[in-house]
Amino acid sequence: MKIIIIGATGTIGKHVTAALEKEHEVVKAGSKSGDFNVDISSPESIEAFYKQVGKFDSLVCVSGDGHFGPLGSMKDTDFRIGVNSKLMGQVNLVLIGQHYINPKGSFTLTSGSLAEDPIILGANLSTMNGAINGFVRGAAVELANALRINAVAPDVVEESPVYFAYFPGHIPVTMHSVTQAYLKSVLGGQTGQVYKISNH
Amino acid sequence: MKIIIIGATGTIGKHVTAALEKEHEVVKAGSKSGDFNVDISSPESIEAFYKQVGKFDSLVCVSGDGHFGPLGSMKDTDFRIGVNSKLMGQVNLVLIGQHYINPKGSFTLTSGSLAEDPIILGANLSTMNGAINGFVRGAAVELANALRINAVAPDVVEESPVYFAYFPGHIPVTMHSVTQAYLKSVLGGQTGQVYKISNH
Repeated sequence: MKIIIIGATGTIGKHVTAALEKEHEVVKAGSKSGDFNVDISSPESIEAFYKQVGKFDSLVCVSGDGHFGPLGSMKDTDFRIGVNSKLMGQVNLVLIGQHYINPKGSFTLTSGSLAEDPIILGANLSTMNGAINGFVRGAAVELANALRINAVAPDVVEESPVYFAYFPGHIPVTMHSVTQAYLKSVLGGQTGQVYKISNH
Repeated sequence: MKIIIIGATGTIGKHVTAALEKEHEVVKAGSKSGDFNVDISSPESIEAFYKQVGKFDSLVCVSGDGHFGPLGSMKDTDFRIGVNSKLMGQVNLVLIGQHYINPKGSFTLTSGSLAEDPIILGANLSTMNGAINGFVRGAAVELANALRINAVAPDVVEESPVYFAYFPGHIPVTMHSVTQAYLKSVLGGQTGQVYKISNH
């Protein structure tokens, strides 16, 4: 399979890339690194990216910014960081990518545990994660005859100790468990699923 | 209590208004009807609205547009209809409203069953509903010392027969059950909850 990984050099992305590139042709993409650069907050950049890459079988997105900060001083412009990147970036990868992907292909997006297990400072990411979960469920029913779509919703991962203090009581999940969820989506047959990876 | 209802004359809003105005001061608001007009897709309009209304105890939003249409031809601009109205409209009512609401006040937003029970043509609304559910959970943990926030997530309601054909197999929910959920949020003590109203 030809598999595009957006965010291939990131904390999670590098593990997913390593696991898939043994047996598949992996196209590594990112905002500043990888074989191709793409700014997922721009529909024009996404369209240009797909034109360059050509037909593919699977897309995995482990990229997307959100706003992390106190609700009390949060503004529309802060909130739009997540809307334009983590939400619309991933949505547009699907809306545009559905016209470039091969039949029987799949999209695997990334949400996160905050949709249902919130933390202080995380209201924007809780919202974006809930949105992505809703999107994969809603999109799956219309893609079902030709394509698949799922999301992976990880809790804080073991290789991101810088975030541990913001997730009190959370048991960081292993890179192995997160990576396996991406493989389940890409290599399996399920669609419309949200794979929740957390230790509780 | 002084209770603001955004969308007070709508299908659900008129029932919620009727149930609350017996014993409370209800401020009816809407895009074109009610005591005050407010365009929730505009942060400036929301700010001006709150300045006019003054301090209040509770806000209920039963308003917000989404895009209803096929995924195969959906574009970023279609998707942004829901982002700017149902999502950011309700989010901004809270982000701005937290500076006008009285202590111990509450926000009650509206999502919907499509977040987890998708239908064909509904991908945008599934996304917005999931986003609102994430938002109330994420915002609740930071509002918890002073304010409450919940969402009501109704399935298709009995008084909207025009939508029945798009919800095959769904048993429309009664206006009574939906209205009671809003009352539970406004008059009760819970926070961070998503009240799912569906017959399955």
